[in-house]
Amino acid sequence: MGNPKAAMIVIGDEILSGRTRDANMHHLAQALTKMGIDLCEARFVSDDEAAIVSAVQELSQRCDHVFTSGGIGPTHDDITADCVARAFDRPIDVRDDARALLEAHWNARGVEINEARLRMARIPEGARLIDNPVSIAPGFTIENVHVMAGVPSVFEAMVATVLPQLTGGKPLLSQSLRIERGEGEIAGPLSALAKRHPQLSIGSYPFQRDGVYGANIVIRGTEGAEVDAAMAELADLFPA
Amino acid sequence: MGNPKAAMIVIGDEILSGRTRDANMHHLAQALTKMGIDLCEARFVSDDEAAIVSAVQELSQRCDHVFTSGGIGPTHDDITADCVARAFDRPIDVRDDARALLEAHWNARGVEINEARLRMARIPEGARLIDNPVSIAPGFTIENVHVMAGVPSVFEAMVATVLPQLTGGKPLLSQSLRIERGEGEIAGPLSALAKRHPQLSIGSYPFQRDGVYGANIVIRGTEGAEVDAAMAELADLFPA
Repeated sequence: MGNPKAAMIVIGDEILSGRTRDANMHHLAQALTKMGIDLCEARFVSDDEAAIVSAVQELSQRCDHVFTSGGIGPTHDDITADCVARAFDRPIDVRDDARALLEAHWNARGVEINEARLRMARIPEGARLIDNPVSIAPGFTIENVHVMAGVPSVFEAMVATVLPQLTGGKPLLSQSLRIERGEGEIAGPLSALAKRHPQLSIGSYPFQRDGVYGANIVIRGTEGAEVDAAMAELADLFPA
Repeated sequence: MGNPKAAMIVIGDEILSGRTRDANMHHLAQALTKMGIDLCEARFVSDDEAAIVSAVQELSQRCDHVFTSGGIGPTHDDITADCVARAFDRPIDVRDDARALLEAHWNARGVEINEARLRMARIPEGARLIDNPVSIAPGFTIENVHVMAGVPSVFEAMVATVLPQLTGGKPLLSQSLRIERGEGEIAGPLSALAKRHPQLSIGSYPFQRDGVYGANIVIRGTEGAEVDAAMAELADLFPA
């Protein structure tokens, strides 16, 4: 549909081991859909240098935007910034403006900045900082990759800063119809409807609860009139 | 650590568009960790043939096991079985044993099986069926790829069938300590602890709630004695 394409990389052993459940992907997916950027892939990788570097390289070449979440804190398992620098073959070091942000924050609290905290001021050469109103340590954008924190409140604040700077596409409109019949009964006419409207994405999401079963049919597209027309056809095919 | 390695592929536009939030990855991650299989990557792709085929090919070569979720129902957007067949260059058609399962189910309800429902009996040549006690239509295993449904109750039932047939590794043991100090203060000694125990995975997960902040430090490993020893060192480093 010509909309910009995005990918997400979620970094962290704690998610792949099942210890914590990621919330950032769902948040980003909804925010991107609203502004007409298509999230085409999300990849969850562990705190492993080779895995992060190759995901960044592959997805930044294939998509218009890449968003990463996680691995930019002060501890030894926070290796995202170094991996992203390596993916673009850029030097990385403590940068003065990032350091100044952290120093001001900690000095105001009477705490001296130490080596670990300074890790959070390591920024690849040529990157633009992403403001962190929650806990100061910034994210950054380099090329088409936006590197953000994993803590959901910080991730969401950074997304709110970054997205308005991007050019969106036509927002995806969607309408849905709940049909209390089995998918096997719906599928034939639905497939014909999808063929008549190749510009639309028509999905069928089955449900089963308290003995009632059926499917929610969701019709998505960027042209409101066509979505309306297909919805009317759908309602005719399956009268309540 | 020599444990078997696994990857997951979650298939479906509805998750990448933010319409629904995936629950299957978290379920599988916890189940695999319990039996000592390491989930190394999870990839969310849309209902797109090329994306599914290449994810299956790449991950099945790189990992011991691949688990897929989604896209095996009767509607036109259910293309997973065909994509997996294509990834392994196998023919795919309606298979008698799968058809018999579906016919018995529908005939008992006085419903004739139609073309759409028969789609769910399409199985790549050489695959082994995975029982579906919830809604009958089977999943299948081909080579090292386990193809399962996206509906969480069905996915979980299929996982419960498949996992006991796999050889696990040493289950990952984990212990955690809540430390009410900023990560920037913890990071230095923690990094040294991690270097002293290269066989362990030591993660730091910051929290901040009601004005109290700190980090949960999680130490994971397959040898209980070493996890215990590192936990004791950690407790000495940061007395409550």
